[in-house]
Amino acid sequence: MKSNPIQFNPHAGVCYPKGFLASGIAAGIKKNGNRDLSLIVSETPCASAGTFTTNTAKAAPVVFDLELIRKFPIRGIVANSGNANASTGKVGYKNTRLMSEWAHEAATTFDPRLQGGNFLVCSTGRIGVQLPMSKVKSGIKLAAKKLSRDDKVAAEAIMTSDTVFKRNSVEINLGSSIVRIGGIAKGAGMIEPGMSASGKPPALHATMLCFLTTDAIISPPLLQATLNTAVGQSFNRIDVDGDMSTNDTVLLLANGQAGNSPIKKGSREFKLFQQALNELTLSLALMIVKDGEGISRIVTVNVTGAKTSIDAEKAVRAIANSTLAKCAWCGGDPNWGRLSAAIGYSGANYDCSKLSVKYNTVLLVKNGLQIDKNVKKARIVAANSSFIVTCDLGMGKHGATMYTTDLTEKYVEFNKGE
Amino acid sequence: MKSNPIQFNPHAGVCYPKGFLASGIAAGIKKNGNRDLSLIVSETPCASAGTFTTNTAKAAPVVFDLELIRKFPIRGIVANSGNANASTGKVGYKNTRLMSEWAHEAATTFDPRLQGGNFLVCSTGRIGVQLPMSKVKSGIKLAAKKLSRDDKVAAEAIMTSDTVFKRNSVEINLGSSIVRIGGIAKGAGMIEPGMSASGKPPALHATMLCFLTTDAIISPPLLQATLNTAVGQSFNRIDVDGDMSTNDTVLLLANGQAGNSPIKKGSREFKLFQQALNELTLSLALMIVKDGEGISRIVTVNVTGAKTSIDAEKAVRAIANSTLAKCAWCGGDPNWGRLSAAIGYSGANYDCSKLSVKYNTVLLVKNGLQIDKNVKKARIVAANSSFIVTCDLGMGKHGATMYTTDLTEKYVEFNKGE
Repeated sequence: MKSNPIQFNPHAGVCYPKGFLASGIAAGIKKNGNRDLSLIVSETPCASAGTFTTNTAKAAPVVFDLELIRKFPIRGIVANSGNANASTGKVGYKNTRLMSEWAHEAATTFDPRLQGGNFLVCSTGRIGVQLPMSKVKSGIKLAAKKLSRDDKVAAEAIMTSDTVFKRNSVEINLGSSIVRIGGIAKGAGMIEPGMSASGKPPALHATMLCFLTTDAIISPPLLQATLNTAVGQSFNRIDVDGDMSTNDTVLLLANGQAGNSPIKKGSREFKLFQQALNELTLSLALMIVKDGEGISRIVTVNVTGAKTSIDAEKAVRAIANSTLAKCAWCGGDPNWGRLSAAIGYSGANYDCSKLSVKYNTVLLVKNGLQIDKNVKKARIVAANSSFIVTCDLGMGKHGATMYTTDLTEKYVEFNKGE
Repeated sequence: MKSNPIQFNPHAGVCYPKGFLASGIAAGIKKNGNRDLSLIVSETPCASAGTFTTNTAKAAPVVFDLELIRKFPIRGIVANSGNANASTGKVGYKNTRLMSEWAHEAATTFDPRLQGGNFLVCSTGRIGVQLPMSKVKSGIKLAAKKLSRDDKVAAEAIMTSDTVFKRNSVEINLGSSIVRIGGIAKGAGMIEPGMSASGKPPALHATMLCFLTTDAIISPPLLQATLNTAVGQSFNRIDVDGDMSTNDTVLLLANGQAGNSPIKKGSREFKLFQQALNELTLSLALMIVKDGEGISRIVTVNVTGAKTSIDAEKAVRAIANSTLAKCAWCGGDPNWGRLSAAIGYSGANYDCSKLSVKYNTVLLVKNGLQIDKNVKKARIVAANSSFIVTCDLGMGKHGATMYTTDLTEKYVEFNKGE
């Protein structure tokens, strides 16, 4: 029996790969006194890759990172929660640059060997308010003093409406070298990410943030390519409320300390690295969905049998975003009429007389008509805290998947005011 | 002082124009025994016009009406609530045709002079269930016996989740003739209509139904043209939950009994008729918004200063549909960051540093930045049960308006199960 080549370690995140340090402290940006500033630093300079929200109202740190990403070397990431630094104009952009400079200054004060390389910046929280920069400055200094191999507090310090911190990591063998990838993430509302490497469409549709690290040796273009693929099948396929944030960012730093032979495109090692990154990012993305504000059910929506991949995408997103479908799921109601209506207004090629709908393995609709004897069984499936809905359009061979949630009274209550 | 040329009569609907009769009875389609079948009949044959959902999963009656509309003569409308006759296949279509035939049969039994002309059909309610046709048949007979000049019960019999029946009517003077237009409507959820005369896009995004009657003499093409304009500025501009129905329909019958000189395109009479129809349809559309499931606030969203009319449309619909914006309004929170984020993902040309936002007359945001001293004033506006939000994109001269609602816990509770 072959053992799984990808070994997960759920008890570590960005500090699982060699040479990464992290910290998370309370700088006073959040009024409740919780941790709100994270610092991640590599002992050696890093290649970097990133994907960024395609929202045109990009937050200042997104604009800043877009200019910096993939430039070598990157040294680390500084991030705050409690304030998105979005819609904050030129002052906001200047504050982001200051955060980056202060992080570098504080890190080298902590350890003079950490010189060289820039810091990427991320922010999450309320839009339209300027950061309290004196608090941020002393916070960054404190965070640098606290750098360690424990990344739990860094994961905590990027939480906003999250109820749990999110981290995971994986290990693979590339040749004789052990390569690790680790990550921390945040996100619970304003979740329908649509990120691309350039911050420009095409990309589909959280504030969600995810910071990934690896000790692999891999060229910057390949690093970006693997991240694009990974994000495309994970963070860009989740939805809580259909609202794409101004701040969504995934960053991946690679410091090369694993000492593997450089990963070559198309090689067995490349495929294994990609698979590991895919599985890690999907696990982190699903943690975000599971922690969706006030949700009671996680729904995997599959569209199959679409005429084109664009049709599949339109249909799956219309269903995943349908207020009425999400409300029905909240009540454990497998109301397929609302699914059919959503496909019908999605713009996808659709003939409702060809629709099949399954709740897990229960066939509820065939050729557009309800199978009455299966309604009770479908209700039992829809009463679970997680289930799979498959809508086959019967028009072709294309498919798409979204990981979504129900819409609950608690979600509305939570978002009524800040 | 000039008196208003358009006189409203809120105490009448489809029976305000000469020569129309209506009824509404309980056929037993609704399990609670409420009225669920409406009949509207003209004493004389009618020209007709209609707009229909652009959802590709069209209900059987929509498919049927699309084939029949604008063919002369039309005699009336038969409509049921409690069952949408959508996603019901060939059986559903056959049942629609039977409803039309039975309505004609029953009407002529009621009064032999009502011969000639077809009946249009509408249905609203749950999707995917076949109509109980024996109940429908006896219901139609009963409805014909009850035909009268009272249209209140006809308005009641098309209600589903509506809490109040909806009707209104207007009177204008065209030359020496008095011309009247009347209407009844229904709708409270699954509301973001996108109707066109052909049932095909382009048209933007309820089940909402509206039946309009007039005694004007007007040619069928002009009748359709005036209806297109009226629906474009009323029903196609409202939103409760962003879910476009499979059944949305507006029908307009004109029996010519006013005896006016035929209305000519571009004439003063045409303009007055158009204005009256616009005001009537907008009043009925706003009744639907006001009766939105579980809502607590009505929000008029204006986008101004857009580069193109398409940009204005994208931006205004993204705001009106934003789950997070609607939740903020529920809490009386003028959270403009959520509005800016929605514009940012709408696909409209947008530079967030040029955004201005007003809550009624309170300027909350200028050049993309919050005016802190006005936040308290904006909160007072957003605490009202109805207010106007104006987002000026600062990029051009184009604008668009949507009439939308907040999203409340009650909405979710209501839609959790049927």
